[in-house]
Amino acid sequence: MARVGVLLLNLGGPERIKDVGPFLYNLFSDPEIIRLPVRAFQKPLAWLISLLRSSKSQEAYRSIGGGSPLRRITEQQARELQSYLRNIGIDATTYVAMRYWHPFTESAVADMKADGVSEVVVLPLYPHFSISTSGSSFRELKRLKDSDDEFAELSIRCIRSWFDHPAYVSSMAELIKKQILACDLPQESHVFFTAHGVPKSYVEEAGDPYQDQIQNCSLLIIDQLENSLGFTNSFSLAYQSRVGPEEWLKPYTEEVLEKLGKSGVKELVVVPISFVSEHIETLQEIDIEYKEIAQKNGIVNFKRVPALDIYPLFIEGLADLVSSCLNGEGISLEEASKLPERVKLYPQEKWQWGWNNSSEVWNGRVAMIVFLCFLMELIIGGGPLHQIGLL
Amino acid sequence: MARVGVLLLNLGGPERIKDVGPFLYNLFSDPEIIRLPVRAFQKPLAWLISLLRSSKSQEAYRSIGGGSPLRRITEQQARELQSYLRNIGIDATTYVAMRYWHPFTESAVADMKADGVSEVVVLPLYPHFSISTSGSSFRELKRLKDSDDEFAELSIRCIRSWFDHPAYVSSMAELIKKQILACDLPQESHVFFTAHGVPKSYVEEAGDPYQDQIQNCSLLIIDQLENSLGFTNSFSLAYQSRVGPEEWLKPYTEEVLEKLGKSGVKELVVVPISFVSEHIETLQEIDIEYKEIAQKNGIVNFKRVPALDIYPLFIEGLADLVSSCLNGEGISLEEASKLPERVKLYPQEKWQWGWNNSSEVWNGRVAMIVFLCFLMELIIGGGPLHQIGLL
Repeated sequence: MARVGVLLLNLGGPERIKDVGPFLYNLFSDPEIIRLPVRAFQKPLAWLISLLRSSKSQEAYRSIGGGSPLRRITEQQARELQSYLRNIGIDATTYVAMRYWHPFTESAVADMKADGVSEVVVLPLYPHFSISTSGSSFRELKRLKDSDDEFAELSIRCIRSWFDHPAYVSSMAELIKKQILACDLPQESHVFFTAHGVPKSYVEEAGDPYQDQIQNCSLLIIDQLENSLGFTNSFSLAYQSRVGPEEWLKPYTEEVLEKLGKSGVKELVVVPISFVSEHIETLQEIDIEYKEIAQKNGIVNFKRVPALDIYPLFIEGLADLVSSCLNGEGISLEEASKLPERVKLYPQEKWQWGWNNSSEVWNGRVAMIVFLCFLMELIIGGGPLHQIGLL
Repeated sequence: MARVGVLLLNLGGPERIKDVGPFLYNLFSDPEIIRLPVRAFQKPLAWLISLLRSSKSQEAYRSIGGGSPLRRITEQQARELQSYLRNIGIDATTYVAMRYWHPFTESAVADMKADGVSEVVVLPLYPHFSISTSGSSFRELKRLKDSDDEFAELSIRCIRSWFDHPAYVSSMAELIKKQILACDLPQESHVFFTAHGVPKSYVEEAGDPYQDQIQNCSLLIIDQLENSLGFTNSFSLAYQSRVGPEEWLKPYTEEVLEKLGKSGVKELVVVPISFVSEHIETLQEIDIEYKEIAQKNGIVNFKRVPALDIYPLFIEGLADLVSSCLNGEGISLEEASKLPERVKLYPQEKWQWGWNNSSEVWNGRVAMIVFLCFLMELIIGGGPLHQIGLL
C-alpha cells in the first residue's frame, strides 16, 4: 500500500507577541483575504493594515496568554488523527500546513517528500469552504505543486468541505447539548451560532458558497440537537470578526447579541460554528468581548460551547473523511483550488482603469495609503517596520 | 510520577528561501553570537550583516533543496527519544526549542505548560558546550523563566554537555568505521574531524570550554575507533564556518584540507564532529564547498560520515542522559546558564569609553555601520528590508 500523507490545512497564528505584526502582514498580503484591483497595492496595504492593527491585536493575544494556541491544538489533532488512522489499518502520517504562520505549507510539503509519501490526502480543518480559508490554502498548495516537479508527481486528493459529515454534526450537537442541559432552564435557553464573517462581496459577487454552507450546517446541527434533546430551542446565526470598512455577511454578532439581550433572553448557548479549534476568535473575541456585550444587554448566563479540538467523535469523523478520500471520493487539487467562476482576483484579468465598478474608489484609497506609507517611512527614518515587530 | 517534559535545544534553520534573511537577523541579533561593546549597536549590525550575507546564504540553502532540514530531523529525534523513554517506563513528552527560528523556545515552554508538565529535563542537542550554542539557549530559557511565574514553578534540570557519553562516542565511532572500511585502503585513510568554529576570543578571553571539549571528544572517538578496527588511522581536527574578520579557532578546515591534499592524502573520512543532525554546514559546506577544495588538492576519495540524526544507539544515549538527569545528575538552569567568569557581555557591566581594550576600534566600526544603514534606508526609500526578505 502507498505511504499516505494527510495534510491538515489551517490558518496558523502568532505564538509570540512579537510575531503578531509579521503574522498580520502575511494575512493581509493574501489576495484571497483582501481583494484589490492591482497587485502592486497588496503589500503596501498589508504593511499599513498590520501596522495599524498590530497593537490592538497584540493586546488581544496578551489577554489569552501571549500567543495563539492554534499550532499546538492542530498538532494534537494531527497526532490523534494519525493514531486513529493507524489503528484502523491505514498507514498514514499527518502533517500540519498553516497558511499564514509556521509551520508553513512549504515545510509540510518538504516533510512529506523527505518521508517518501506517495499519496496525499488534503483535509482542510475548515468544515465550510470559503475562498478566503480552504480556497486560499488549496491555491497555495497548487502554486507549490506547479513549481515543484517532485511534489507534482505525488497523487494528491482533496476534500473541499465537510460541514455535513454526520460525525462532525453529531460532535457539535453533543457539545451544545451539554451546555444546554447545564442551563437553569434548558428549554428557554437560546442557541446562538456565531461564524467567522467574510466580506459580503465574496458571497454576492464572487459566488463563495460559505454562507450557504454555514446556514445548512446550523440547520443540520439544530435538527440533530432536537432529536437528541426531545425539545426545541430558539436559535439564531450571526457573523463575527469583521475587519475594515467593507460590508460583511450580516447580521453581525455584536448586533444580534444586543437584540437578544433586549428581547429578554437570559441564558445563551454560544456556538462558534466555523472554528474546530480554540483560538483568538473563541478565547478572546467570544469569551471576552462578546460576553461583555451580552452581559451589558441583560444576558445573565453566557455559556460558550468549547471548540471541538480533539473530541473523539470529531477525530473519528476526520478519519472517516480521509478513508473515504482514499477510496476515491476526493477531488483533484486543480478542482479544489478552482475559484468560483465569478471571482475576479487581479492575476486573472486586466484591470480596467476609469469609472467602472468601484475602481475609482479603490484607486483613490490605495494611492492615499501608499503615499502615507512612504511619508511615514521617510519621517521615522529607520523605517516604521519595527513598530509591527518586523524589526 | 511527575509528568516529564524533555526540552531539546537546537539552533533552528530557515525552511523557506524567504526566511533566510529574518533567520540571519535573529542569529546576529544574539549577543552570544556577536559580542559588541554597546547593546544599541546590536540590531543595526545584525540588520546589516543579514542584508549583506542574505543572498549568498539563500544560494546555499537553494543548493540543498530550498531550506534547512533541521526542524524535521530534530522533530524525528524528539519522536524517537519519546518512544524510547516511554518504552523504558519514563512517561516523558519531548519538545523542540529552537533558538533562532520556529518552533521557538517560547512555543515549547507554552506547550509544556499546556500539557501540564511538572518536571523539565533540558537537553541541548549540542554535545559540546559553547557560550554561543547551549549557553545562548540556556540563557534564553532563563530569561523566559524569570518572566513567567507559572514556568518558574516547574522543576527544571539541565544537562550542560555530553560529549563524553559512551553511547555518543560509540555511535560516532561506528559511523566513522563504516566509512573507513569502505575506503580502498582503510589503513591509509585519514580521519578528519571538522567542528563548527567559534571566535578565538570566546575561548581565550571568555573561557569557553568548547575547544577543550572538542579536542577531548575527538580523542575519545579515535580511541574507540582504534579498539574497534584493530589499526590506527592518522587523524586531524579543524574548525569550519568562520564568519567575519575576527580570528576564529584554528586551524581552519579549508587550510587543513589543502595541506592534507598536498601531503599526499588520497582518501579522507570527514567527520562533522559538532553536528548531530544534517544541516547547511554538513550538506552544503562540507559536501559541496569543502569537497571541492579537497578534490582540487588531490584528495580522490572524500567520504563524509553522516550526522547521527536518529541513529538508534545515539537515541539510546540521549535517553540515558535524560534518565540520569531524572535520577539527580542534572544541574539547575541557573547553573547551566551561568557564563564562564571571564565573559563580559554588555548587559553585565558599564562599558568604559575611551582607549581601553578594543573599544575604539569597535566604536569606529559600528558608527560607520550605523551611518551606512541609515544612508541606505534613505536612498532606497521604502527601506531595504525587502532585500533580506523582511518585506
